[in-house]
Amino acid sequence: MEKVGIGLVGYGTVGSGVGRLLHESADEIRLATGKDVSLRTVCELSAERRALVPPGVRTTTDFGDLLHDPAIGVVIELIGGIEPARTFQLAALKAGKAVVTANKQLLSQHGAELLQTAEDNGTFLRFEASSVGAVPVVKVLRESLAASQITGIMGIVNGTTNYILSAMTQTGAQYGPTLAKAQDLGFAEADPTEDVSGKDAAAKMAILSSIAFHSRVTLADVEHEGIAAVTDIDVAHGRQLGLVPKLLGVAKLIDGRVNVRVYPCFIPAAHPLAGVSGAYNAVFLESDSFDRIMLFGPGAGGTPTASAVIGDVISIVNTAAGGYIGNCTCYKSLGFYPGAEVVSRFYLRVQVADEPGALAAIAGVFGQEGVSIHSMQQIGEEDSAQLVLVLHPVREAAFFGALARIAALPVVRSRPSVIRIEGDDGR
Amino acid sequence: MEKVGIGLVGYGTVGSGVGRLLHESADEIRLATGKDVSLRTVCELSAERRALVPPGVRTTTDFGDLLHDPAIGVVIELIGGIEPARTFQLAALKAGKAVVTANKQLLSQHGAELLQTAEDNGTFLRFEASSVGAVPVVKVLRESLAASQITGIMGIVNGTTNYILSAMTQTGAQYGPTLAKAQDLGFAEADPTEDVSGKDAAAKMAILSSIAFHSRVTLADVEHEGIAAVTDIDVAHGRQLGLVPKLLGVAKLIDGRVNVRVYPCFIPAAHPLAGVSGAYNAVFLESDSFDRIMLFGPGAGGTPTASAVIGDVISIVNTAAGGYIGNCTCYKSLGFYPGAEVVSRFYLRVQVADEPGALAAIAGVFGQEGVSIHSMQQIGEEDSAQLVLVLHPVREAAFFGALARIAALPVVRSRPSVIRIEGDDGR
Repeated sequence: MEKVGIGLVGYGTVGSGVGRLLHESADEIRLATGKDVSLRTVCELSAERRALVPPGVRTTTDFGDLLHDPAIGVVIELIGGIEPARTFQLAALKAGKAVVTANKQLLSQHGAELLQTAEDNGTFLRFEASSVGAVPVVKVLRESLAASQITGIMGIVNGTTNYILSAMTQTGAQYGPTLAKAQDLGFAEADPTEDVSGKDAAAKMAILSSIAFHSRVTLADVEHEGIAAVTDIDVAHGRQLGLVPKLLGVAKLIDGRVNVRVYPCFIPAAHPLAGVSGAYNAVFLESDSFDRIMLFGPGAGGTPTASAVIGDVISIVNTAAGGYIGNCTCYKSLGFYPGAEVVSRFYLRVQVADEPGALAAIAGVFGQEGVSIHSMQQIGEEDSAQLVLVLHPVREAAFFGALARIAALPVVRSRPSVIRIEGDDGR
Repeated sequence: MEKVGIGLVGYGTVGSGVGRLLHESADEIRLATGKDVSLRTVCELSAERRALVPPGVRTTTDFGDLLHDPAIGVVIELIGGIEPARTFQLAALKAGKAVVTANKQLLSQHGAELLQTAEDNGTFLRFEASSVGAVPVVKVLRESLAASQITGIMGIVNGTTNYILSAMTQTGAQYGPTLAKAQDLGFAEADPTEDVSGKDAAAKMAILSSIAFHSRVTLADVEHEGIAAVTDIDVAHGRQLGLVPKLLGVAKLIDGRVNVRVYPCFIPAAHPLAGVSGAYNAVFLESDSFDRIMLFGPGAGGTPTASAVIGDVISIVNTAAGGYIGNCTCYKSLGFYPGAEVVSRFYLRVQVADEPGALAAIAGVFGQEGVSIHSMQQIGEEDSAQLVLVLHPVREAAFFGALARIAALPVVRSRPSVIRIEGDDGR
């Protein structure tokens, strides 16, 4: 039976999970692949972590020991970050070794270089764990749906922000205290910027949309807004309208061009994504050929992520040579569709002075700018009123033009709240 | 470039969808696989349907023309039913051709024979479209999750029953009129028995649990109950309890044995499966290694099913030889766990005479049989009362023993309604 030796770089939470799963599931993997796949060497700088490596597996602090070992056919990189991960991956691919990684930063910024290097050297790069943890979205897109034209992706691809928005929806609490509680419970980092700003989600959307649209999308191509501006007041109004707040990655194919953004938005409570709560992730795909498919599961966690890494190892040893399932999925070079030209639906809340003509002033601006109102509710407060509007689909440039004029009206008391609305009810 | 000729048997809704997708996506498939995959011959008895085959593709009424054509490497069988589909598939596999099918009846009853024949002849059998339409559950289970021990499957795998139960939940209507409306709208067949009895779902669960547990489960091994006994009254009580009715296929690995059943049950409204409404399907998988994963999408329809067939064709031309991803996933031979020994949760509604001692009589029987009550509500009617009980988890044999005694009590006015409760809230 053919032997496949694994070299593993990084023995932290995910790495040790990979080590354990490879050991526990050795029989299953042998039966699945017809090959004897085993962990041969772990490269890890921390002596404390090296001590956790089971007996029978070599340890080293020198990546060269993996690179120059002909018995190692697959290198798993789990150290994260750009360098030295990029150098390690390129060296492994040039040596003809297949690479598996969970490194979303690297993939979303240097994916093209890495995939091309894999292709040029007749080997494979796999990165399922870099996008949606245990959920095999990349594999489904690349293989099962290879013949389908994907027209849209909506993804809840960041567990921290989904946890915070779910908690705000359930408790009615404000953003600040909810974030603090999430930090206490370990659902948010001490420095949560990467997550709450939408940047983590943007990196994952860059990877997913590159695969789905067969055209390169990098992190720099993905505009992103975070969740810090979502207020408890808007969450409560959304509930009254049957809407649930989510931080979504939204990728659309419009007139042959691609628009990929991350923003907080409302979706109907009956939409399949609305039920994805807490630290879970989900990706919703649309196509004329398969209608709509959603994949749901844990977006993070050592063992689920390790499970995705093992799935990639199995994929590598089972994939026949040739074709982009080998590697290069980006055989198109589509342009980008500007966000200002996208037609979107908006929720808008404006605090106005409680005086005659306030509503007329706002409605007047929308009328002049060609923005059509779907529904409007006025809620009286002490000496002011909240106007809650839902607009008909509108070109974003027109909406934001009108919004700037409205924000400058004398009757408007504070900065208007704007949240996009995505998704019908999933039928 | 290697050429792969396709022979297609059956040119109905799905077959013509496959023909169209193979043509439209020829470039994508070539790029994905590095092979020139094209439809070569269609075998179809109906002259009317043969007339729909595009020019350049041969047509025949004789399966032998596919079987003996060395340029045909993959046979797609879309005629359904046991014979002649079984004979055709076996002949194709023995001739070394790979087979793709959407035939759940055949797979759930003769899967072992067909898979073994594929294995013995060094070729592949693929059947994604036989279980959950466009949703690639089989591929995810066989490949991505090959190293994970699946401990449970809950599936909404029949669109007709899901449509009916969703409509009953939304409208409050009774089963009979809702079924009639579903038939009018084309969501239920003129003879809906196969769907509403749970038999269709049972066949799909046999296929899915065979793959998930690596142990043969046939249609005959799957007990199934249908939805005809679900009343509008119970749907309304469920709503008050925060529960939604679904026809679920439920497969459990208990103490190394397998239990696979199909029954109507209640799930919490916050569970990810609760949001799967209308004609959609979803499969929810549980494992210690990946926690929980759900796959959602259209369970039927010509184009989505055709998309799954194409995914299988791509899988075949990209799979390296060896290992069960080739074929035989059932390398274990697990026993079956009896339903009577399964510990379940139950909803129970009993109509009793409105007289002193009615509740005490029922509670007394449950106490004697060791069945513990989680919650109880009594709703007065004219001269009787409805008791709505939710029980703590209980061995099914104990519950049904107690139920038989309760049904025979003089105070009980009609046959009690019993619905299992599955799923926590998905966290």
